Amino acid sequence: MKVVVTGGTGMIGRKLIDSLLATPELIDRDGNKAEVTAITAFDVVAPNPPLPDDPRLTVVTGEISDAAAVEALIDDDTDTVFHLAAVVSAQAEEDFDLGMRVNLDGTRITLERCRALDHAPRVVYASSVAAFGGDMPDVIDDSVTPNPQTTYGVTKVIGEYLIDDYSRKGFIDGRALRLPTIVVRPGRPNKAASTWASSILREPLAGHAAVCPVTEESKMWMLSPRRVVESFRHAQVLDGEAWGPHRVVNLPGITGSVTESLQALSRAGGNSARARVTFEHDPFIQEIVDGWANTFKTPRGLEMGFKADTDLDEIVNVFLEDDLPGQHVYYD
Amino acid sequence: MKVVVTGGTGMIGRKLIDSLLATPELIDRDGNKAEVTAITAFDVVAPNPPLPDDPRLTVVTGEISDAAAVEALIDDDTDTVFHLAAVVSAQAEEDFDLGMRVNLDGTRITLERCRALDHAPRVVYASSVAAFGGDMPDVIDDSVTPNPQTTYGVTKVIGEYLIDDYSRKGFIDGRALRLPTIVVRPGRPNKAASTWASSILREPLAGHAAVCPVTEESKMWMLSPRRVVESFRHAQVLDGEAWGPHRVVNLPGITGSVTESLQALSRAGGNSARARVTFEHDPFIQEIVDGWANTFKTPRGLEMGFKADTDLDEIVNVFLEDDLPGQHVYYD
Repeated sequence: MKVVVTGGTGMIGRKLIDSLLATPELIDRDGNKAEVTAITAFDVVAPNPPLPDDPRLTVVTGEISDAAAVEALIDDDTDTVFHLAAVVSAQAEEDFDLGMRVNLDGTRITLERCRALDHAPRVVYASSVAAFGGDMPDVIDDSVTPNPQTTYGVTKVIGEYLIDDYSRKGFIDGRALRLPTIVVRPGRPNKAASTWASSILREPLAGHAAVCPVTEESKMWMLSPRRVVESFRHAQVLDGEAWGPHRVVNLPGITGSVTESLQALSRAGGNSARARVTFEHDPFIQEIVDGWANTFKTPRGLEMGFKADTDLDEIVNVFLEDDLPGQHVYYD
Repeated sequence: MKVVVTGGTGMIGRKLIDSLLATPELIDRDGNKAEVTAITAFDVVAPNPPLPDDPRLTVVTGEISDAAAVEALIDDDTDTVFHLAAVVSAQAEEDFDLGMRVNLDGTRITLERCRALDHAPRVVYASSVAAFGGDMPDVIDDSVTPNPQTTYGVTKVIGEYLIDDYSRKGFIDGRALRLPTIVVRPGRPNKAASTWASSILREPLAGHAAVCPVTEESKMWMLSPRRVVESFRHAQVLDGEAWGPHRVVNLPGITGSVTESLQALSRAGGNSARARVTFEHDPFIQEIVDGWANTFKTPRGLEMGFKADTDLDEIVNVFLEDDLPGQHVYYD
């Protein structure tokens, strides 16, 4: 069974591929458990660092908005597409055309290619809590209407409606996950307005300083990289009936404040780790973060068997186990 | 001031153009009242019957999904675009590619062209209660999440999200109206699953027989052609602040059952008119109609000054006054 991962060299794509190589079992086009024998990782840039050297894994570099590239990528052998390729929020906000081309045209091209196959593949689509914004209730439940305040969020919600309609028409067997902010992201800080949520844990645990640009009361809706990979896999293996006609789910997560993150940091890394975090208020970042939904009730996702991390200690431990294995982080 | 009406030869487009020719006042790009001196009606077919012979009116035939045609259509002189061009529900359901091309690509091309102008034009967009479907509460209020069950509805909702984002970015000054079923449609019955709602009033009042394919209890969310034209005009003249950041509104309407329609028919046309309606149950049509939202609360639309018809008698009278003027309909 062949699996395609678009955006395969991104943080989640990499971890998903690692997981599929380690445990190569998903559901095939006939609804049966089957072995993943081939994975194609597609991305706009060549992976750096390289992806694992494994005979089952092929890396293809190209644009998701290039129909010919996508036609070559997804073929009748493909049982499942994990569609993660996207221009993220800050970049799509800066470059509207790029956001529309990659996120909207790219998704349409991917779905059209899936429709053209001799079978309806499972398509697991990465959406985002960036779907929510504007006037919101204090708690986002499964009934709250998406009201994205970024082009990124708008293109993600449009993709959800396309996933629903392509599934209703029987062109694909689609599943869309609204991802919380993923914490702790490994690697270096990026330009996302949420990057501090990972930085204030990752950097001190690796012995580096970190600056927090928001108040201690600031909250974030979070999920660990390990749980998000589990969620993508779970979304793929669930029966269509478990999804019902509406193919979108708010993933469970946890709400964590900066204070709670720093407490978990102290427990894992001691006072010396905690002391590496300083505050330098950035009103621009604060305003963006305050505009995000941070508290959810996700009965649908929980009933479907999606799982959040237990607490911030688990989120920190996932990072230590998966991204800093064997490293000594407690220095007090 | 130049106004473009896409879908200008359709039922609503024609009535909107008639209204603009009769009362040529809208709001210009600077927010001031101004005279409509030029109207361009754009549609895929030449108007039949012809549109009024008026020096202010130009008819252009072309595809809304043809970027070059739309580029020629909408120019820097254009202050407002009423974007009504669409493939309707049954047709988009039969021909998915056509629905996506006209409704989604056509809307994107229209919005991109508006964005390219030297000013941000007002764009008034026809959306639909087909946005709602699936599991719904008994009463649709302004908080209910669109869950369209047709490709038509999906493309309309996607258009709403684009209108919102293009407005947020300052590319256009957009306004989207979710239209109830328009009753009484003049002309001949069409293939829409809702066509009976007009037929059971229009045909008997014109002396013809009509067949009702649904039960007497069946309900519909309705608005008259006169009120929908008023709504498009009102949407154009409202200030941006009246809309706020979310540029979509559920239009007020009235809920009417078949029984209530037939009572209004009797009052307007007598027992002989009522006797021209017979019932011939069509389970296919019944199922579609039962799946539609028929009862709404529209506080946002009402607060913004949009108005529904008072009752079914008014809906019938609008038809008699606007589409059967001077004709004797009461034969008892």
